[in-house]
Order: sequence, then C-alpha cells, then structure tokens
Amino acid sequence: MVNGIIPPMVTPLLADNLSLDVKGVDNLTNHIIAGGVHGLFILGTTGEATSLSYKTREKLIYESSKTVNGRVPLFVGISDTSIEESLNLASIAKKAGASAVVAAPPFYYGLGQIELFKYYWNLADQLSLPLFLYNMPSHTKINIEIDTALKLSEHPNIIGLKDSSANIVYFEKLCHLLKHKDFTLLVGPEEVTAQTILMGGHGGVNGGANMFPKLYVALYKAAIARDFDRINSLQDLVMEISTKIYNLGSFGSSYLKGMKAGLSALGIINAHIAPPFQKFDEKEMNAVMLNIQNIKAKIEKVL
Amino acid sequence: MVNGIIPPMVTPLLADNLSLDVKGVDNLTNHIIAGGVHGLFILGTTGEATSLSYKTREKLIYESSKTVNGRVPLFVGISDTSIEESLNLASIAKKAGASAVVAAPPFYYGLGQIELFKYYWNLADQLSLPLFLYNMPSHTKINIEIDTALKLSEHPNIIGLKDSSANIVYFEKLCHLLKHKDFTLLVGPEEVTAQTILMGGHGGVNGGANMFPKLYVALYKAAIARDFDRINSLQDLVMEISTKIYNLGSFGSSYLKGMKAGLSALGIINAHIAPPFQKFDEKEMNAVMLNIQNIKAKIEKVL
Amino acid sequence: MVNGIIPPMVTPLLADNLSLDVKGVDNLTNHIIAGGVHGLFILGTTGEATSLSYKTREKLIYESSKTVNGRVPLFVGISDTSIEESLNLASIAKKAGASAVVAAPPFYYGLGQIELFKYYWNLADQLSLPLFLYNMPSHTKINIEIDTALKLSEHPNIIGLKDSSANIVYFEKLCHLLKHKDFTLLVGPEEVTAQTILMGGHGGVNGGANMFPKLYVALYKAAIARDFDRINSLQDLVMEISTKIYNLGSFGSSYLKGMKAGLSALGIINAHIAPPFQKFDEKEMNAVMLNIQNIKAKIEKVL
Amino acid sequence: MVNGIIPPMVTPLLADNLSLDVKGVDNLTNHIIAGGVHGLFILGTTGEATSLSYKTREKLIYESSKTVNGRVPLFVGISDTSIEESLNLASIAKKAGASAVVAAPPFYYGLGQIELFKYYWNLADQLSLPLFLYNMPSHTKINIEIDTALKLSEHPNIIGLKDSSANIVYFEKLCHLLKHKDFTLLVGPEEVTAQTILMGGHGGVNGGANMFPKLYVALYKAAIARDFDRINSLQDLVMEISTKIYNLGSFGSSYLKGMKAGLSALGIINAHIAPPFQKFDEKEMNAVMLNIQNIKAKIEKVL
Repeated sequence: MVNGIIPPMVTPLLADNLSLDVKGVDNLTNHIIAGGVHGLFILGTTGEATSLSYKTREKLIYESSKTVNGRVPLFVGISDTSIEESLNLASIAKKAGASAVVAAPPFYYGLGQIELFKYYWNLADQLSLPLFLYNMPSHTKINIEIDTALKLSEHPNIIGLKDSSANIVYFEKLCHLLKHKDFTLLVGPEEVTAQTILMGGHGGVNGGANMFPKLYVALYKAAIARDFDRINSLQDLVMEISTKIYNLGSFGSSYLKGMKAGLSALGIINAHIAPPFQKFDEKEMNAVMLNIQNIKAKIEKVL
Repeated sequence: MVNGIIPPMVTPLLADNLSLDVKGVDNLTNHIIAGGVHGLFILGTTGEATSLSYKTREKLIYESSKTVNGRVPLFVGISDTSIEESLNLASIAKKAGASAVVAAPPFYYGLGQIELFKYYWNLADQLSLPLFLYNMPSHTKINIEIDTALKLSEHPNIIGLKDSSANIVYFEKLCHLLKHKDFTLLVGPEEVTAQTILMGGHGGVNGGANMFPKLYVALYKAAIARDFDRINSLQDLVMEISTKIYNLGSFGSSYLKGMKAGLSALGIINAHIAPPFQKFDEKEMNAVMLNIQNIKAKIEKVL
Repeated sequence: MVNGIIPPMVTPLLADNLSLDVKGVDNLTNHIIAGGVHGLFILGTTGEATSLSYKTREKLIYESSKTVNGRVPLFVGISDTSIEESLNLASIAKKAGASAVVAAPPFYYGLGQIELFKYYWNLADQLSLPLFLYNMPSHTKINIEIDTALKLSEHPNIIGLKDSSANIVYFEKLCHLLKHKDFTLLVGPEEVTAQTILMGGHGGVNGGANMFPKLYVALYKAAIARDFDRINSLQDLVMEISTKIYNLGSFGSSYLKGMKAGLSALGIINAHIAPPFQKFDEKEMNAVMLNIQNIKAKIEKVL
Repeated sequence: MVNGIIPPMVTPLLADNLSLDVKGVDNLTNHIIAGGVHGLFILGTTGEATSLSYKTREKLIYESSKTVNGRVPLFVGISDTSIEESLNLASIAKKAGASAVVAAPPFYYGLGQIELFKYYWNLADQLSLPLFLYNMPSHTKINIEIDTALKLSEHPNIIGLKDSSANIVYFEKLCHLLKHKDFTLLVGPEEVTAQTILMGGHGGVNGGANMFPKLYVALYKAAIARDFDRINSLQDLVMEISTKIYNLGSFGSSYLKGMKAGLSALGIINAHIAPPFQKFDEKEMNAVMLNIQNIKAKIEKVL
C-alpha cells in the first residue's frame, strides 16, 4: 500500500510549440524527489494531461520514468474519453516501469453509475498495472458514488482511490467503509491532507508539493505523529499558498496558472501552459513573484 | 463567541394536519439539552423550516424557547425568499429571547455575489439580533464565496458562518483568513466535525445530535482534548449513523427521513414529515429500527 | 381551455418600504388588458412572488382581481416551499374570483421525480381551483420530467403546464404526447412563442407583454394565421426587446431589472424592485430609456 | 453557406475489438446520401468521436470521404481537449477533402468565456479549413455565450455555429443578431429543426437522419415551403422517433443506444457501441425493433 505525499507533477512545456521541456522535467522531478516524497504522479489534472498530445504524454512517461529511476513509485494518469487510448497509455506506462495507473471517469458523455461501474471493471480487467480510481466530479461531471466505489474495490486490480472532490464527507465515508480492506485512499486538495491523515486517510496528492515538496512531507509526518504545534505552523503555510498563489486571476484555471507561475518564480521551470489556458500576464506574475518569495522565506524558517 | 455542538433541531409534527407537535417539541428539546449541547438551532434545513407555514414557525419559536428557558443559547433560522418574512421571523425570535438568527441566501432567484453581499448587509442592518450566515449551496444554488464572506464579516452584526457545503477546503480557507477575528465558524456535516475542530473550527451544527446528543458532545470534547483513542471510537459511531441511517431510500431526502425515522424508533418523537416529503414506508422504517438499536447499544457502551 | 397571451404581471412596489403600489397595480393591469391579452398571471417569477411577504401577495390578489373585474381570466401563482402557504394563497385566489392557480415545484430541498409527483397530486387534491404546473428548472433545481408531467395530466384538477425551461425539445415532446388531451401547454420565453404556436402550442406567458401587450397579441395572432411577413417583422421587435432591454447588467436578474426599468421609462409604473435585487443604477436606466423609446417607436409603426 | 440537413453520422463499429466497421461506413454513408441530405458531419457527439482512438478517427475520415466522393460537403469533428490533436485531425480532414471542421469547446477543464474566446480564435488562426463552432454545454460544461459567439463570428475562418443546447431562446438570439452576416446557424435537436427553419435558421444536424434521411430532408423542405399540412404530418413522425426510440433505457446514453439499435433493426449497420457505453440488452433491442418497424411503415406511407 502506498502512503504519504505523492505530488501530481506539473508538466513543463517549451514556449515555442508547447512541446515537452525535457530539461524542465528533469529539474522538476529531481526537485520533487529531493523533498522526500513517497511517490510521483504524472499526467493528472495538475499535469495538464488532457491538454497534451499523445506523443507528448508518451514522451513525458519515458522522460520522467528515466529521471525517477526507481527512487519512488511512479503513477501514470491514463484518463481519457477513449478506452483504447487509455489502454495505450497504460501499456507505455508498464514498459516505462510505472507502479500503477490512475484513471478518472470518461468525461465527455454523461454516465450513469452502472455504466461507470462497467467501464471501470472492464478497464481494470484489461490493465497489466494496478489501477487507482480518480474521483474528480467538477471536471468529469460524475461522482464515483460510494456504492460504486465499494463494488469496484472488489476488483483485484483496483487498489485505491484518489478523491479530488473536496467533499470530505464523501472521503470519510470511504475511509469508514473500507477501513478493513487493503485499499489506498488519497486526498487531492492539500488544504485537507492533515485532517484526513489524522482521521485515517493514507496520503495526499498535493499540487503544492511541486513547489515545496518538503513542506507537504513535513505536514504529513506531523499529522502521523499528531504533533499539533507542528501541524498548525505548517498548515498555516499551506493555507497561505492556497489563498495567495492559487487565487489570483478570475477563472477556475487560477490554480494551474498560479502553480506554474510559482514554479517559474522559484526558478524551477518556466510558466508556459497549454491551451485552452494562457499563462498569467505580467501583473499577475508579479503578484505571484512577490507572494512566493515571502512564503518561501517563511517555509525555510520553519523546516 | 459560541463554541461546541449546536444541534439543528428536527421539527416534530402531528400526523393529522402537520401542525406542530408541541409535546414532541418539549420532549426533543429536553432530550437534546440533557445531552450537554452548547446551543440549539431551530428552523434550519434539518428543521424543515421552509416546508412549514409561518404560523407553525412562529409557534415553534415560542414553544422551543419556553422549553429551552435560557439553559442554552437559542439560534433561530430566518431563511426566506422574502426579506420581509425573514425580518418578521427575526423579530419574533427577539421577543422569544433567542440569542441570534441564522439566514441562508434567498433561494429562488439566481444571485450574483454582489447582489448577495448587498442582500446580507442590508438584512444585518435591519436586525436587532446578531446574524449567522448559512452557506448551503446545494439548496440555495449559490455559494457564499470566500471574498463575500470576508467582506460580510466586517459587519458588526454578522458574527459567524455555518457551512453546510461539505467542501472543507472552503471551510479551512475561512478558518485561515478569519482566525484573528472574533468570528464563529461552524460546520454542518457531522462526519467532519472532529477534523475541523482539530484544525481550528469552532463547532458543529450536527443533525445526529437530535438522536444522540451525548455522542457529538463527547466527540467535540475529545477533539478539543486531542484524545485520538476516543476520537476514533466515537467517529466510528458517527460514521455508522451516517452510512446506516441517512443512506436508506433513494433520494436526497433520505437524510431527513432517516433522521425522523431514527427519532421515532428511539421513542423520542414520531416520524411525520412535511410535504414535499413523505415519511419512510414500513420496510425502510424496519431497517432504521434495526440499525438504530444496534448503534444505540454501541454508543451506550462507549459513553 | 386557455389560449393566447397571458402576461406574467410585474408587481409594482412603492419606494419607501416596498409595499404594494396599489395605483401602479391599477395602471399596469389596465394597460395590459387594453392590449387585448387573453388572461393575466400574477405572482409568477416575473411578479417577484417569492420576494414578497404574504400580506403583500394577498393584497395583490385582491387589488388585481378588482381591477381585472372579470374582463380576462386571472391566474394566480401559489408557488411556495410550504404547501400550507400555497393552499392559503389558493384559497385567497378562489375568494378573489381567480380562474386557476399556478405552482412551480417546491424549491428549497432537492426532490426526486416520485416525490414531485406525489407533491403535485396531493396539492391538486386539496385545491378548489384548477392547477397549472409550472416548469422552471433554473430556479427550482428540478425539471418536471416528461413522464411525471404525463402522469400528472391524468389528475382532473391539473389542466395545463407552463414551461419556462427554454428547452423547446421538452416542450415539443409534451405537445406531441398530450395532443389528444384537453391540456393547455404554454411557453414562458417570449422569444419562442411564435415557433411553438406554429407547431401546436397554445400560448405564451410572455413578460414583455407588461410593456407592449399589443405586440405579443399581434405576434400570437400572426402565428395562428401563419402570416409570415407579419411574424417576421413582429418577431424582430420581440428579439430587440430581448437583446436590448433584458441583457443589460451583469447577472441573471437583468431580465427582471430591465423589465421594471422599461416599464418605468414608459411611464407605466416605477422601477422599484424587491430584495434580493436592487434596481438599475442611473447609467443602466439611461441605456434602457434610450433603447425602449426606440423600440416603442418601431412597434407603433408596425402595429 | 451550407443550408439544409447535415446528419451527424453514427460510427459503425465491429464487435470484436471495436475497430471501424469499414463496410458499415460504406453502407451508412450511401444510405444517408441517398436520402438527399445537404452535407454529412462525421465525428460528432452522435459519432462517438471522443470514445474512438485517434487511429480509428483517422480511418473514418478517409473511409467516409472516399465513399462520399464529393457528392455532398463533408464536415469533420475535431473536438478534443488537446489543441494539438484537434489540429492533427483537421489536417487529416483537409487531406481527405473535407469542406470544414467542427469543434466543441475543450471539455475537461472549466473555462471562462475569455479563455474560450482566445482558444477558438487561436484555433481558427491555425486551421486551413473553415471552422464551425459547436455549442454543447451539457457535455462540455460551458455555453458559448452570445457575446463570445458574436466576437468569434468576426474571425474570417469561423463560418458558423451548430447549437445542441436545446435552448432555442439562445438560438433565436444568435439568428437575430447575426442575420445580416454570412454566418451559418444550425440546430442539433431534430425536434426543433422545423421551428428554427421557419424562423430563419439554416438547417439541422439531426441524428435521426442516420435512420431516415428522407424524412428530415422532407421536413426541411416543407418548412422552407411553409407547407403546414406536410410539416405537421412529418413532425409527428419525428416526434415518434424522439419519444419511442431515444427514450428507452435509463441514462442519458439512451439517445445513442437507441439510434444504433434502430439502425441495426433497420439492417443498415450493427448496434455495437464504444465504451463507456454498452449496447442495449435483448429486451430493449426488441422494444426498438418493434417501434422502428412501425415508424418506418408510417414514414413510407407519407413520403
């Protein structure tokens, strides 16, 4: 079972044609692993997977796998509207030595829960790597309902669920109902990692760990240790990132734009972002720059 | 500042014409207060406020106030689509000796955040009791966004917010941004009371405390004391209630129906429910009966 | 069976305390009836029913009924979250001589279709006036699904449905499935009255007929007569109102604010609007003023 | 400018591995063109585009283009979450001799209107074929708002919009505001093709024309001729298909499953459907079989 902080890696892109920034992948992967994380998840929502061409996705799998080089388990997102393309990505992931794949529900058509169940069961049957379910209702238009998740947890090839719904009632229900099973429950939003760890969750797939991996690892460890002085001071910093870096700009994309702007301000990778988004303009970049240096200084004081 | 468990009281109704079950109000109020709760909230979503006539709402305010008799602070829901009716209810609450009123956004028309802000500011200006904001987007179609809540927290008459969104990311942001202010942040869903208390929230407006007030009070105290052995055993029972009493039936109303069925099975009040809902049929009632006795026995062992 | 244009009357309010503008009700009622309409519908969404106190709603029923004085059938909205208040309003309507009542689904709790069906059937059983169903999913969070509407059409007291979903596929299905029954199907959005009349619909509950009743009556008649030269020139004016009067301001409320601003610019009633809304500011009022005079001149040329 | 009936072609699939049924493509294409349609649209929502692998999409473009062989204009759907893949598909479409491409908004991330505008403008800049916008909010989570559509209509390479929102108010506003421009406005739902043609729309992208192309072409011509006897009898048949073939099964997918089941019952292609869906079971297939033969007989009597 995987436990701990498994960052959803941002995908570094080159300016000119939005092809993969290979050197950036190298930098970022090493930066994250140096932070002591427990795994790495590529091609998720934070990784802009669905905005990338299949060639780029394939290249990213090989490049990041090469840099990871077995130091931590590698998880590969295969979310797609076409099951054939999901299976293609999964077989590339297998070849590249990934530990597991992660799939959100197909996200174009509206599905019923029975259709969703059959889809996942069928997918898991055909995969040679273990599968994490990925609950992301705001993007996929469907919630993997409790009963559906319970039934899917019976499949030998389905080993966990990552919940990005931000609905912690849902997450706690899963923790309660699955606590006697070997099934990994990870939470997406970093603002609630500590809380869910305290109550029995297994880890966090936290975007902020692209910028500050040590912060999230430290928070995870403090939650495991129930060291509340430490939890409180670290959670404060997590909330500063949440409210000062992800909330600039006026659309839902501000999380993604803020993250890439932050990474660029920290000198780790550039801020280029794939359509349908555009990177922050200068004014927003300057705001991120200011805030991130401030936060970085505070983090360094605490860690 | 109010801290602790403030149950959203169920409204006992008579069978024949769905008028108020005055004896039931008395029973239930005393049962809840005997559990050591820190306040009582009538006419919320769990109290079916919007399904009741104004006469019934008025009667409930006076009856429950009489029974409470100052033992705990009384909070009165005034959520309405008509501001005039909200103000009427508030002035009745004032006369009856309530401590504060609670208002969700008006829920018929779709609103913009600026309109919502003006609505609440204007309402607070006209109230003689302090006001709690009540965030309930699934029912009102509008989220009280972070920025709106922050601006409203500046009003001297707005003293807190109850969040029933189940989105704990939202709640943690409010806790972070308002932590240096005297502003009460309460969470609705009982499944996350412990988590939010551990991280700095002030209390829970938990429906289950109608049935088992001592359980939720004990959980609150355990969270304050950071006594994890106790938190874990109590949280387990809270999750049993959540997954075995509120999840029967096939609609969103299963929470409300389950709650009233549970109270009836426990012999506290009858199960009558106001239109647009109908109480559980016999089969569902029997399932609740079985589950609730089981849970009750477990609770008695622990407390 | 009712056919034709049945305007959803705007509710004129006084500035000071938002009480009913009785003189305004008189003016507006007479203005609308002088336009040759086939009925009048008070206390709908356009009438801000849910924003008004019960006293104001009661007063409006009596005042408008007095002014209508049997010249056209009067329809009274009784939409409410409390069935008891709906029944109260219906009995006032009955006393005042109304022809029928109109009810949207209860709009606070989320309902299942079976619950909705039982609610309406039960309501119709208790009414002494015939009932129109009112489909308004954007405001009530529930669509009266085709099957539910068909089953409800079997109730002897349910005589029609007003559809404000703007989903004309839904409306055409109802027209098709109910065409051999004596069941009235009216459409809300004025932009599609002509189309639905051409295909078998029975009429329009069109807000713009508060300002220009003759325009909508003429369009209805042209559609009945299949006079396409006339339809085209009138529809053009309807679309100008739609795109130049209802689309100012930045929220969903721009329809309501534009309508009251337009009526005020035309000198028929003042522009006061009930909370949660606020009337247009001066800039928006001036834009309406300019546009409405322009449109009025064009309408007078054609009619 | 394209006018008339442009069916969104169903994609015939082989049972074993869901690869393209090339013979089926040939049959269906010829069947549709023999019905007198004015164009053919492949790789839309009805064509299950997003469920197909890129190889299958590419193959379909070449195969259908070969069979069409210039007899009618060919429109190719390039909707994708990755702009690079959309551009790839567009360049294949160009090579294959297509007339235009059609793109829905990217459908994974939530977008703001400004982001949507920039996305489309940028896409149109890079295309060598003209572009149709495709409004499909139920699937893409975003409506191409009126103002956005108006601004995009200024791009020399954007020549029209297909609206599948079923919100005819929206469609009529576009018709009104764009009527003096050379911009094609097509409506998706076949239940409203006649209505929109009568009022100035340019055509219908109607799924039912896969089964009965002549019916929809006849309806289009009757609407152009304003021959209401004919419109009424044909519309009746269109509504029978809508309410008896598309409404079986219990999910949103019943349209797609019903269509493929209908085509199979008519002996044109088989009923295989790509994941995440599964074809109807025997009971539902039998219901379709019965209904479709009935409808077919009625159509043959009228045409």
